[in-house]
Amino acid sequence: MSMDTYPITVGRVTRHVPLVETLPGVRIPLIELMGDVELVNAAAEALLKHLPPETDYLLTMETSPIVLAHAMSEMSGKPYVVVRRRRRPYMQDPIIQEVQSLTLGVSETLWLDSRMAEKLLGQNVSLVVDVVSSGGTIMALEKVAIRAGAKVVARLAAFHQGTNKLPVTFLSEIPILQTA
Amino acid sequence: MSMDTYPITVGRVTRHVPLVETLPGVRIPLIELMGDVELVNAAAEALLKHLPPETDYLLTMETSPIVLAHAMSEMSGKPYVVVRRRRRPYMQDPIIQEVQSLTLGVSETLWLDSRMAEKLLGQNVSLVVDVVSSGGTIMALEKVAIRAGAKVVARLAAFHQGTNKLPVTFLSEIPILQTA
Repeated sequence: MSMDTYPITVGRVTRHVPLVETLPGVRIPLIELMGDVELVNAAAEALLKHLPPETDYLLTMETSPIVLAHAMSEMSGKPYVVVRRRRRPYMQDPIIQEVQSLTLGVSETLWLDSRMAEKLLGQNVSLVVDVVSSGGTIMALEKVAIRAGAKVVARLAAFHQGTNKLPVTFLSEIPILQTA
Repeated sequence: MSMDTYPITVGRVTRHVPLVETLPGVRIPLIELMGDVELVNAAAEALLKHLPPETDYLLTMETSPIVLAHAMSEMSGKPYVVVRRRRRPYMQDPIIQEVQSLTLGVSETLWLDSRMAEKLLGQNVSLVVDVVSSGGTIMALEKVAIRAGAKVVARLAAFHQGTNKLPVTFLSEIPILQTA
């Protein structure tokens, strides 16, 4: 099987990533942050230049962007909280937020344990995700932050894809390629 | 609500973590690696002392142990691969492995895309997890490694819990507390 690749650059790091067919005739570059320490650190370093200094917490969610928020937390000293995509057995009175995802065509759910939500109360929060596409996921993450009593001061994404006009700071545009 | 805590020590770091009731009358300390850079780095540093030098890849899985493997990868320079708990749309011919989890009482499934599996072929792999309890998850992870054609040279866990006698190297024992 021949595999086409596409070059993606973040700061000083370039990866030639595989193109995957997500719908018939539509291909997108498949970027994996997990497993790539160098790429994660380059993205974290570049996003931290856009982090408002008044940020108290980074807020991210499962799964891919966790390592990005972790690296940003290590570099900046700001703590981070991870919103889950599945209910965990230990959760008490979690915040439950539906996500309308156009990309996946299904509805998903975000979960934040009340013990984590309490940390965010009254705090300035910067959202951290890997890619903003339809925007459904980051909007749901923002709703979780607001329901926890936090103020969202920044929306940071490593990558942006598609035509949405959301107020998100991102590093690289990912193309959506139509095959002939 | 009063909240009891329990001290958990990893290397130079101690956390007083909440006790959660998982079954009536049974409480366990709830340790969160995600969101705690200092604890993750302490665990990564301590586990790396047990990493066989012939290791080519670290192999971990969603969700909690990802940050541990990521930190170990950054410190050691060894690459890591993450086995998923859900099928992702881009996967081609994934390895699909059932997990029998006594802890959760339900069966789960591990997924590894063939593009990731190909990296492991003929390689020496060290498994990295956060906690070994019934052992079902790490045994399933080992099966994924073997089915990908890798040789498992170490089984590393930050924490161990319960009575299983699996050959796992771990840092701390987590108690299972019976309430009066």
